Amino acid sequence: MGRPGIGVSLRRFLVEPAALCEGEVALPPEEAAHARKVLRLTPGAEVELIDGQGRRARGVLTRLDKSGGACRVETVEHAAPPAPRLVLCPGLLKSPAMDLLAAKLTELAVDQVRPMLTQRAVPKEGGGSSKRERWQRLAGQALKQCGAARAPEFVDPAPLPEVLAAVPPGVARLLLYEDEERASLAQALPGLAGAGEIWALVGPEGGFTSQEAARAVAAGFVSCRLPHTILRAETAALALASVIRFALQPPC
Amino acid sequence: MGRPGIGVSLRRFLVEPAALCEGEVALPPEEAAHARKVLRLTPGAEVELIDGQGRRARGVLTRLDKSGGACRVETVEHAAPPAPRLVLCPGLLKSPAMDLLAAKLTELAVDQVRPMLTQRAVPKEGGGSSKRERWQRLAGQALKQCGAARAPEFVDPAPLPEVLAAVPPGVARLLLYEDEERASLAQALPGLAGAGEIWALVGPEGGFTSQEAARAVAAGFVSCRLPHTILRAETAALALASVIRFALQPPC
Repeated sequence: MGRPGIGVSLRRFLVEPAALCEGEVALPPEEAAHARKVLRLTPGAEVELIDGQGRRARGVLTRLDKSGGACRVETVEHAAPPAPRLVLCPGLLKSPAMDLLAAKLTELAVDQVRPMLTQRAVPKEGGGSSKRERWQRLAGQALKQCGAARAPEFVDPAPLPEVLAAVPPGVARLLLYEDEERASLAQALPGLAGAGEIWALVGPEGGFTSQEAARAVAAGFVSCRLPHTILRAETAALALASVIRFALQPPC
Repeated sequence: MGRPGIGVSLRRFLVEPAALCEGEVALPPEEAAHARKVLRLTPGAEVELIDGQGRRARGVLTRLDKSGGACRVETVEHAAPPAPRLVLCPGLLKSPAMDLLAAKLTELAVDQVRPMLTQRAVPKEGGGSSKRERWQRLAGQALKQCGAARAPEFVDPAPLPEVLAAVPPGVARLLLYEDEERASLAQALPGLAGAGEIWALVGPEGGFTSQEAARAVAAGFVSCRLPHTILRAETAALALASVIRFALQPPC
C-alpha cells in the first residue's frame, strides 16, 4: 500500500491551514531547513503541500535559502472527510504506545482522538497540552510519510466522566470492554451501520473497571468485546479503528 | 484491554512445546536467567508457562539457581485456535515494520505469516531463516507481554508465485490492492463469512504491480481496497488482520 508515499514522500511539506492558498506560499522555517539541508532541494523542484486538514496542493519551489523558502501553488484540492466521522477515546497509555497510536490513527483517518484518564490509565497525571502538541506533531509526520492529507484533532487527556459528558446527542456509541460477556464487536457492528458519527471508547492497559464500564453503558455506550484474543491496549485501539473504518457495510 | 497482562506478565515464561507437561518442567536457560536476575524470583513463586502453540499452565517455581530453573505444573490447559484460520501474506518490509508486524500479528491471533518477495518489496534479498527466527522470537516476546498462548507460524520469505502455489484448495482468498476500483474490503467481507480458512495478501510499501495483482486474481484471490485512506504497508496488514479477526459476522 501507500504508493503515493514512494518518491514524493520526501518532498511533502506541512504548512499552516491559513497559509495554504493559490499563489506564493511560504514554507514554515523547519520545513524550509529540512528541504534545503536534508533533501537538498533547489528552486524549481516540484513539491506537495498539505495542511493536515484535508487540503493538498502541488507546487514548485521558487525560493530556498538560509532565510526560508517559498513555493508557487496553482491549485488547491480539498479531500472530503471519510464517513462516518470517528472519535476514538483510548485510555491514556505510556509514551511509546501513545506515539504509535498518534501515527497509526492518523493513517486510519480517525477524526478526533480524546485520550481518557481512567482508574488504570498510566500515567495518572495529564502532562496536558504538551502531550497533545507532541501527538499532533507526530500525526503531521505520519501524514508526510503516508501521503494522507488530514490529521486527527488531538484533545487534551480528560477524565472519563468529562469525555462521556462531551458526547453530542445522536451519535453512535461503542465501548470495547474485555469483561463484556454477551456481544462481540462483530455482533455490535450492524448497529453502527448508517451512523454519521461514532464515538468509540477503548480501555488503557489493564482495561476499564466494572464501574467505569457501567458508567459508559449508562451514557448510552454499547459494550462489546474482541473475542479469542488478548491485545495490548494500543493494538485494541488500532483494531477497533480499523474495523470501524473498513468493515462497516456501505449504504445499499 | 489486556488485563491478563497486568502483574502476571512479568512471571510468564515460554517453554518448548515438547517440554510443557504436567509434573516437573525445566525452564529454558535464558528464561531461568531472566527469572533470577531481572525478576528476582525465588522458589515458591507462582508462574505461568506457555508453549506458543496454545497450551498454558500455572506452576510453582521449585528450583532457580545459576544452573537453571524448574517448576512444578499441575494442569495444562489447551486453548482452541480461533476460527477462521488466518494466513497473512505481507510483502516483505524493512526490519522495524516487520518487527512491529511480528508482535502485533501475534496479538491479533494470526495463524501463519508468509512474507512475500514482490517487485517492490524491500529488501529484495531474503535473509531467509535468520529473519524467520527473529520474527518467531519477537512473537514469543509478544505472547509473554500480552498473555496470549499461541504465536503465528512464520514462514521464510518466498516469491509471490510460490506463495500462490502454496494456497490449499478450498480456502477463501483475499487480495488487498490499492488500485482496485470496484470492491472495498467491506464489500468483500460477506464473501468470507463461514470460511474455515482465509489467505490474505497485502502488498509491500509501494503496493503490488498490476501484473502481480492480475496473477493473484487468476489464482482465485478476490481483489479489494481500503477506501478513503493511505496506509503504510504495515498498517494495512494490521488493519486487514483486525477486520478479518473481528468483523466477520458469526454464524447465526
